[in-house]
Amino acid sequence: MTVAAQMLQAAPTTTGYGPEELAACIEACFDCAQACTACADACLAEDMVADLRRCITSDLNCADICAATGRVLSRQTAYDATLTTAVLIACREVCRICAEECEGHTHMAHCQICAEACRRCEQTCAQLLGA
Amino acid sequence: MTVAAQMLQAAPTTTGYGPEELAACIEACFDCAQACTACADACLAEDMVADLRRCITSDLNCADICAATGRVLSRQTAYDATLTTAVLIACREVCRICAEECEGHTHMAHCQICAEACRRCEQTCAQLLGA
Amino acid sequence: MTVAAQMLQAAPTTTGYGPEELAACIEACFDCAQACTACADACLAEDMVADLRRCITSDLNCADICAATGRVLSRQTAYDATLTTAVLIACREVCRICAEECEGHTHMAHCQICAEACRRCEQTCAQLLGA
Amino acid sequence: MTVAAQMLQAAPTTTGYGPEELAACIEACFDCAQACTACADACLAEDMVADLRRCITSDLNCADICAATGRVLSRQTAYDATLTTAVLIACREVCRICAEECEGHTHMAHCQICAEACRRCEQTCAQLLGA
Repeated sequence: MTVAAQMLQAAPTTTGYGPEELAACIEACFDCAQACTACADACLAEDMVADLRRCITSDLNCADICAATGRVLSRQTAYDATLTTAVLIACREVCRICAEECEGHTHMAHCQICAEACRRCEQTCAQLLGA
Repeated sequence: MTVAAQMLQAAPTTTGYGPEELAACIEACFDCAQACTACADACLAEDMVADLRRCITSDLNCADICAATGRVLSRQTAYDATLTTAVLIACREVCRICAEECEGHTHMAHCQICAEACRRCEQTCAQLLGA
Repeated sequence: MTVAAQMLQAAPTTTGYGPEELAACIEACFDCAQACTACADACLAEDMVADLRRCITSDLNCADICAATGRVLSRQTAYDATLTTAVLIACREVCRICAEECEGHTHMAHCQICAEACRRCEQTCAQLLGA
Repeated sequence: MTVAAQMLQAAPTTTGYGPEELAACIEACFDCAQACTACADACLAEDMVADLRRCITSDLNCADICAATGRVLSRQTAYDATLTTAVLIACREVCRICAEECEGHTHMAHCQICAEACRRCEQTCAQLLGA
């Protein structure tokens, strides 16, 4: 079991979502924040860095929004549906945009892996929004 | 002139927004992130902390979203209107919710100041969204 | 293989550390940031919240430092040994302090899990510092 | 008066430092985090981006450490001298390194302004450490 799933189980609160879907989204947010931070760094090291400005920027933005979303979702004590929904919508959108950008150059392994992390995060956000 | 305004002027890029409105929103995001972090801490120190759980949580969430939004807005090189709009909508909403919460106990000076910072951030987000 | 390990392998740069030790520390930083965020939230929900002020504060501080450290370590393109060492020393110290705090009340499962995440992060930081 | 100074005055806690020095350091941390985020973005837009990899990386690292430090300093309820000292030492060091990097190309106004923000943050951290 991951740390996020263990922490949800250990908390004295009930959650606004199914615990498995919620844990999956928290993990996807943290993974995506890491992948995007590392992808921006890897893009910066490429010879063609001047052609990767948009990718680096969307990576950095996606890292920040996923990190914030992962934290918001980790707080279930005073869960607010309106707030969480607004954050999930933004995160789903930012992940979709970053995934599309990275999917444009999957010949670089770091963009391939990052795109997959973004799609996973987009999908887990969509799942919580649909619940 | 604030650091954010100076940095916008110094950047070799044009921005997706009017530079004054953009600088005002960036500053409001960073100020609100600080105020919310400090308000959560001050609430934690109050005798009635058990009654302030919702306020602490909305402070922490608002701090994270404002910090992420302030960073996204500070990146104008590869400006993406869809991404920025999604983030601004979430930030405006989270600030409104946190302001309403803090306005419920303005007898505590930290909640009064924090509510004002949240309202300022909400308004500057709304201004960029309306532009 | 974790996302962090995959990203390290995919990057066009060599790293300042052994890739396995580095991946382990990055993962421990992100896990600890999540656990500490969730532990602060769980402590806030406890009946005895007034006795958990120090734990909540050290959780929030540890989450912020671990998140920043995990990001710094994810950037290997222009690795700077002095900078990275300074950050790792702070992270190791903050994790030790938060672990000690949480170990004081392991009857609460969230503090037990969080303490373990902090100790893992402390140890992986120490490993990189010793390398 | 700045938001950080107002919040310190409004909090029901005494602080581990003189309130003026503390407010100055919190503000310098948040300003530096903004300046470094914007400087990384401005460097990315420069024609000579391939020569600015080290500057972009130190900007991103400095932004993360300053943001975390500004948050830690904003929490005075359960002030821990050892933890705060460790964080301030790292922040002072990271700001010094980023300032030196940016001072190497002050013909770009964004690096000039960013270097000044880093030096101000380095100095306010040193002041708290010396207190």
